[in-house]
Amino acid sequence: MRRFISHKTINLISKTTTSTISSSSPNSPSLSPNSPLASLLRFFSTLHPSSMASDYSATPITIDNINPKVLKCEYAVRGEIVSIAQTLQQNLKDNPGSHPFDEILYCNIGNPQSLAQQPITFFREVLALCDHPSILDKSETQGLFSADAIERAFQILEQIPGRATGAYSHSQGIKGLRDTIASGMKARDGFPADPNDLFLTDGASPAVHMMMQLLIRSENDGILCPIPQYPLYSASIALHGGTLVPYYLDEQTGWGLEISELEHQLKTAKSKGIDVRALVVINPGNPTGQVLGEANQREIVEFCKKEGLVLLADEVYQENVYVPDKKFHSFKKISRSMGYGETDISLVSFQSVSKGFYGECGKRGGYMEVTGFSPEVREQIYKLASVNLCSNISGQILASLIMSPPKVGDESYESFSAEKEAILSSLARRAKTLEDALNNLEGVTCNRAEGAMYLFPCINLPDKAIKAAEEAKTAPDAFYAKHLLNATGIVVVPGSGFRQVPGTWHFRCTILPQEEKIPAIVSRLTEFHKKFMDEFRG
Amino acid sequence: MRRFISHKTINLISKTTTSTISSSSPNSPSLSPNSPLASLLRFFSTLHPSSMASDYSATPITIDNINPKVLKCEYAVRGEIVSIAQTLQQNLKDNPGSHPFDEILYCNIGNPQSLAQQPITFFREVLALCDHPSILDKSETQGLFSADAIERAFQILEQIPGRATGAYSHSQGIKGLRDTIASGMKARDGFPADPNDLFLTDGASPAVHMMMQLLIRSENDGILCPIPQYPLYSASIALHGGTLVPYYLDEQTGWGLEISELEHQLKTAKSKGIDVRALVVINPGNPTGQVLGEANQREIVEFCKKEGLVLLADEVYQENVYVPDKKFHSFKKISRSMGYGETDISLVSFQSVSKGFYGECGKRGGYMEVTGFSPEVREQIYKLASVNLCSNISGQILASLIMSPPKVGDESYESFSAEKEAILSSLARRAKTLEDALNNLEGVTCNRAEGAMYLFPCINLPDKAIKAAEEAKTAPDAFYAKHLLNATGIVVVPGSGFRQVPGTWHFRCTILPQEEKIPAIVSRLTEFHKKFMDEFRG
Repeated sequence: MRRFISHKTINLISKTTTSTISSSSPNSPSLSPNSPLASLLRFFSTLHPSSMASDYSATPITIDNINPKVLKCEYAVRGEIVSIAQTLQQNLKDNPGSHPFDEILYCNIGNPQSLAQQPITFFREVLALCDHPSILDKSETQGLFSADAIERAFQILEQIPGRATGAYSHSQGIKGLRDTIASGMKARDGFPADPNDLFLTDGASPAVHMMMQLLIRSENDGILCPIPQYPLYSASIALHGGTLVPYYLDEQTGWGLEISELEHQLKTAKSKGIDVRALVVINPGNPTGQVLGEANQREIVEFCKKEGLVLLADEVYQENVYVPDKKFHSFKKISRSMGYGETDISLVSFQSVSKGFYGECGKRGGYMEVTGFSPEVREQIYKLASVNLCSNISGQILASLIMSPPKVGDESYESFSAEKEAILSSLARRAKTLEDALNNLEGVTCNRAEGAMYLFPCINLPDKAIKAAEEAKTAPDAFYAKHLLNATGIVVVPGSGFRQVPGTWHFRCTILPQEEKIPAIVSRLTEFHKKFMDEFRG
Repeated sequence: MRRFISHKTINLISKTTTSTISSSSPNSPSLSPNSPLASLLRFFSTLHPSSMASDYSATPITIDNINPKVLKCEYAVRGEIVSIAQTLQQNLKDNPGSHPFDEILYCNIGNPQSLAQQPITFFREVLALCDHPSILDKSETQGLFSADAIERAFQILEQIPGRATGAYSHSQGIKGLRDTIASGMKARDGFPADPNDLFLTDGASPAVHMMMQLLIRSENDGILCPIPQYPLYSASIALHGGTLVPYYLDEQTGWGLEISELEHQLKTAKSKGIDVRALVVINPGNPTGQVLGEANQREIVEFCKKEGLVLLADEVYQENVYVPDKKFHSFKKISRSMGYGETDISLVSFQSVSKGFYGECGKRGGYMEVTGFSPEVREQIYKLASVNLCSNISGQILASLIMSPPKVGDESYESFSAEKEAILSSLARRAKTLEDALNNLEGVTCNRAEGAMYLFPCINLPDKAIKAAEEAKTAPDAFYAKHLLNATGIVVVPGSGFRQVPGTWHFRCTILPQEEKIPAIVSRLTEFHKKFMDEFRG
């Protein structure tokens, strides 16, 4: 029974959900779209396509009329130097021997498995079984997979409604996996975590964007960010049209985070009419590698509490601490241990499966824990999450695994522990070797990599090099990095991509190349640096 | 050798990348941060934490001061009705028998595997093998996996630099996988596709956001969207601060897309000062289920060409066509067959692993093909992609698999074809059964579901029901949907969530419940509808 649509209630305009040109009927208000006349007009317009055409022509899309916020955004980790490196790599493939090196060494990005770090076996076993659960009951599977991986896969499938690893999940992530993560956080911190506070995301980056999107209304809204910073923050603030309020880490005190500096920058921002809404802290630091002391963390919490700032804690390197005198403490643990609860401070912590000893960058798993917001605001965060439906289920599963690895007594425990220990101790050795090598270079100083995956040495460049860079219309540290790449195949990111105290020059170098390649890197770098200084010492 | 940082070049301000409060030195300009006096001041400020504190206090985050664009955004597919359904589901679990139904039937969202659709075996075999490649060489693997899945996994691993499925990839996606997808597109269309035009994303949603972010500068920028539309578009336009310019699909002609309507709405928008930048077309339609005819598609391409509009083609349901008289044609194929090449029209096509016969929503795989933009604009799109590093590798692999499934002669070909055919033919039967049932209801008309996964019936609601809805401060179709849910456990999305001709009322219902459940759904729906009409007929 097909019937005509009722237009009786045409005046009952439904609520619109965004700016919409009001248009109470499909065609002109005086002409019902279903009238014979309208149909006739449509028929004629088909015969003569241009008869009803407007003389309107939209502005074609050019670089001059796209969203200027996109133009403003920069992300140096994958910028110009990396493009040059990719070209060189192709050259080497097409014409072996065409350069004074035989491979490109990507020290620009924290991407361990691209440099031959092997994935943790237990994690991959569980992921494979969850991807293809129909083999779980087969006898051959016992020979291929560890018993606890099989058991874990069963447990995880039980937590997924309908065991459907191919279905969209709850927009915050599968509840059972969030329960597991919350338990892992409680075991880590000694304070409870609420699974309803967790939002699982495709890596940590979308979580950062979500918070920036929530907090930033206009360029009058500011976000306090460390300088140097991980460029995701400057990029996200630019894309959302806010203002980055810099606070400088003190290189002299091992990239110390001074409260007086926060206070000074907050005051300066306020005097310029900026409403500062949040403070970003990266701990362990990226690109700086420092690990905050507990007392310092307490000061930071106190500062945010007093100033009413949201504390955005980037804690993705929480498993990457290499020095015996430092330990990772989550900001949640610190604030709870100070007696501050849900209503005292707004705190968001970001975590990722891409870092730590697992380094599963390609899986795009991560989450944020959101505490200290009103239920109404929380609902808005949920809505933002729901627009993209959910994060990928393999990444969700992996996020639960990193927070609940094999335990003593599990079949995989020993091999898992050995894999973990081998990776972390090797990273610590590589960090120390590279740090020492850098400090041995003329005009270079490098703080300890206490944690994370990077060194961020300061290069005291000769005036002649700075002048040559100016003539080449490039930043002096980019000038240095390009010379380094062309001479050695080593890819680093110029400090200007992370920002730095004006007039100082740095580069970020990961500690991730395979350990057996480190001596060659050190000698190539040392040789290059000496030549560079000889050329430009003036 | 630790040395002091050179401040000689302090005036060489490095280029900043976003709005940043200028601050040429870490503390006040007249006091070097490393001077003994500054250290002394810092020391005192530690002793008396408040001595240097500003009197500034940030505005705490409340619902009244978050980004208003977030508040404006709505996403009905996971809105209020779904929240009620989740509560009911918990009730049923806690108190079986507490409602007149024993399960919640989620017909609100295109999420096939949540309703027991099984994943395609070949795809999952390959994913599992790529997740845990170390089993590839083991003899037990031959017994568990098909030979062509093993071979395919080897091929894919060869395409991934270092065989590292856990590494970040190129920000557009792994080149070898893009090659495979491009070949699949060429086989589909008969026109070449360039792998460098492909951007692999976590599902199609992030790709849509990326384009909106690129195109929208302010509320003066408009995007032409079909009404009814998939609410991702209204949500994304709201989040990016643009204006949705509606064009109405003609329900009378099976949700026809009339060029005269596009012209009319474009003119109206222009008269209001809106710069319309793009046209969104969803084909097959969501929520409407129509499949565009080839002649109509040519008119649309001509319209975009003439008006200089970017054509944003949502083609995620390209494998979901259920009627013999319709066939899917990509807009790329249509425009190339009209002789329009790269420089004639800007065209973006979205595809996803979540739909089709595979329905792998939880894997978050998808891509967009971007053609007809200048290299400079393309570079900006690449930059946007690079800020989030890359999409998840399993999703990337799956995107390549759906575009290159097993072929005649492959071991899996027959079982693959049987699985595919079973799903698609069942979907076609379910669509027809539900369509007929809906058309048998008093005051309900429902167009054919020619494609996609939805029916979007029009309900001619009695005045008394509309009045009751007004009193309950809810839209009449939401009023109907809530009554339906409470009486039957069936979850549908009110038409107002997709927008509709004002004064008409609809709901979106998926065709995805298991086939054996369809008769019960039909009888429950029919019984409910009769009672509802009896109650409100007045």
